[in-house]
Formats: sequence, C-alpha cells, structure tokens
Amino acid sequence: MKRVKVSNNVIRRLPRYLRKLDELHENGTNRISSFELGQQLGLTPSQIRQDFSCFGEFGQQGYGYNVAVLREQIAGILGMDRGYKAILVGAGNIGHALMDNFSFAECGVQLVAAFDIKENLIGTVFKGVPILAESQMEEYLKTNDIAIAVLCVPKEVAVNVTKVLTGNGVEAIWNFTNIELTEPNSPIIVENVHFSDSLLSLSYFVSERMDEHTSQNTKTGK
Amino acid sequence: MKRVKVSNNVIRRLPRYLRKLDELHENGTNRISSFELGQQLGLTPSQIRQDFSCFGEFGQQGYGYNVAVLREQIAGILGMDRGYKAILVGAGNIGHALMDNFSFAECGVQLVAAFDIKENLIGTVFKGVPILAESQMEEYLKTNDIAIAVLCVPKEVAVNVTKVLTGNGVEAIWNFTNIELTEPNSPIIVENVHFSDSLLSLSYFVSERMDEHTSQNTKTGK
Repeated sequence: MKRVKVSNNVIRRLPRYLRKLDELHENGTNRISSFELGQQLGLTPSQIRQDFSCFGEFGQQGYGYNVAVLREQIAGILGMDRGYKAILVGAGNIGHALMDNFSFAECGVQLVAAFDIKENLIGTVFKGVPILAESQMEEYLKTNDIAIAVLCVPKEVAVNVTKVLTGNGVEAIWNFTNIELTEPNSPIIVENVHFSDSLLSLSYFVSERMDEHTSQNTKTGK
Repeated sequence: MKRVKVSNNVIRRLPRYLRKLDELHENGTNRISSFELGQQLGLTPSQIRQDFSCFGEFGQQGYGYNVAVLREQIAGILGMDRGYKAILVGAGNIGHALMDNFSFAECGVQLVAAFDIKENLIGTVFKGVPILAESQMEEYLKTNDIAIAVLCVPKEVAVNVTKVLTGNGVEAIWNFTNIELTEPNSPIIVENVHFSDSLLSLSYFVSERMDEHTSQNTKTGK
C-alpha cells in the first residue's frame, strides 16, 4: 500500500470509525452520509471527509458511504488483514485479564503464546494460548515471526525484557508496564497503556468542571 | 483555581510530565532545565515552556525547574489533591485486576466501594474495598459524595448503569466497557479506555513501518 504521512490524530480516530461502522453494520445500516456519521461521533462532516481523504476516495458525493465497504477499507488501513502474530509477556493479573477478556482476533491479531516465570503457570494452556517459560522466549522469537509483544511484566524487569524482544525481531510493544520505554529517536514502536494517565486526565476534567461551577456560583452570589 | 481553556494535547501531556518528575525525584534530581526535560521526553524545550505557560510561571529563566515544586504544581492542576471519591462497578476480570494492581491512591483518588451482582462477591472486602450488591448502588450514591465511577460492567448493561450513575451525582465515568457512552453535547465526563483502539493504532504503525521497508527494498531492487 502506498502511504502518505498521516497525522497522529487522524490515526487515533480510525479505530473509533471502525467501532461505529461495526455498530451500524450490526444494526443493519447499509449506507451513511458524512453528516450522519459526524453526528453520531461528535465530529463535523468536513472533518470526516478530510480524515478519509488521507487514504483516497471512499464515498460518493451526495450518496454517502457504503458501511461494509468503508469498514473493510479502514480495517485494511489499520493492518487488520495482515495476520500479525503476538506474544504476551507476564501472565499475571493484567496479562491474565487481557487473555481472558480481550479479543485479539477481533483486531486481526493472533495471540500465539504467553510467557511467565511462575512454575504453576508454565506448561498450562489458557483459552487456547500456551503459557511457556520466560527462559524459552528468546529461542521462541528466533523461530517464530512475532510482530507484537504485549508487555505485562513488573516495572523492574520491563527494560531488560524489552531488549530481548526488540533484539529478536519484535517490531512493536504494547506496553502495560506504566514506564516509558521509548528513548527519543528509538526505532521501536511502543504503544503505551497508562491507566494512571487516563485517570489523571479524567481528574483534570472533573476539577475543571468543579472550578467552573464554583466561579459561576460566586458570580451569581450562591 | 482560575482556569483558562487548555488544549486537549496539553492536558494529555501533564500526566507524562508527572511520571517523569516522579522518576527524577526518586533518582535525587532536584532541578532540571526545559532542555533536559525535553530530551528525556522527546519534546522540544519550547514545547515544554509553552505547555507550562498555560498554567502560570513555573520555572526561572536560566535556572530551570525545581523538580519537587513543579511536581506539586502539576499534581494540583490535575486535581490530585482534591480527594475525589470513586466507586468501581463490575468486579469481574478487568475490574478485579484494577482493584488488585492499580493504585488509585497514587492518582489522589479514593476507591471507596465496588458493586457487583455476583452473590459470591457481595459482602466481601478486597484490598480494603467492600464489594456491595449493585442493587444498593443508587442508595449508596445518594448518601456518599462520589465524583468518579469506574465502569467495568458487560457492554449490554453499560448504558443503563451509566444512567443510574449520572442521575445520582457522579460527574465522570472511567469507561472500560468498549462502548461509546458519550452523546454529542452530553454533560457527562467520559474517559474511555479502549484496549482495541490502542492495539489497532499499534497495528497501523507496524503496517506503516512494514510498507516503508517494502517500498525501500523495491527501490533498491532487493
């Protein structure tokens, strides 16, 4: 696929479009205008047309988008049809919760193995995924084409585990460890899931709201 | 606190600054320039000065920032000193993992109760947090000042539970349900944690990287 450089904000909206299109498809909607789609997502129609124009022409003027076709196109842009293989490192609480609840397959990703150091986990199979000893990981990476590692290990070992992963062909880390793994100009792709960043942003918005109330009440003498 | 409207991108960077300042503080660094801080975060010094200028003057020209003071200021901006109370709804896998591993207290948030419908969970206490029957939730909200609800219920009931929450004084939802809860112009604050969006963005970046390799190899005749 020929690619132009697309802004991060556009890339971040693609999965949201996909979720909405899935929902529309399930509800039996075959066609939608950029106006309607925008209303449902809280975006302007021109924003939506501009986002899609980064990847070519998807709709037809005055006719709207074919939901199923647009869904396939966005899935393709996101690489969901490429069958990336992933391993999970650290099958403790959050790792376990991901294996149990999260559908990697729905994202087009194949979770092929998990690694841990706990004796009672090693050799077991959870939801079809074998849990292997972390000591076997390097060998495993050398003989399997793994694009993505889901990192759920304790903070203290995160950097060392990352070195093993990236030194053995892993392209990208889905990082649940709450530490920054990327050095500036590093070639590793890191996608951080920082729960605390998310909760703190929420805390900011709550505080902003409360301060607005306070200042309004002060003005009106409440 | 008097507030000016700050862009979403700036707000999203504040928790990252905080994490970095915590790390610097732990390592015994007392003072840091915007240049050094920028290097460590992959941001330009002017970006950093501009971000902080949204909230007043934090540093001193040619002298840098006092790490501990800056940390306190950012924590204050994020509302971490306000003691917001939170409840968790749905103590299943992901809810359980959050209660077990995630430190709400480190974000300045007090997790005061969890709610579930499973008989074997109701009445138990997990890590100091009582798990109550979901049928008691409305009453609980009326008599306790709860700002934040952590929503970990199954998709099917997410909208109805949200109505009960927001109808009883909850200001903000930390949404782990993978469905969009916000209607356009809704007054509820919703912070979505969409694991799939995160993995799909990562999949995009991997695909972009691979396509770059392919087009380079084509050019060089590999």
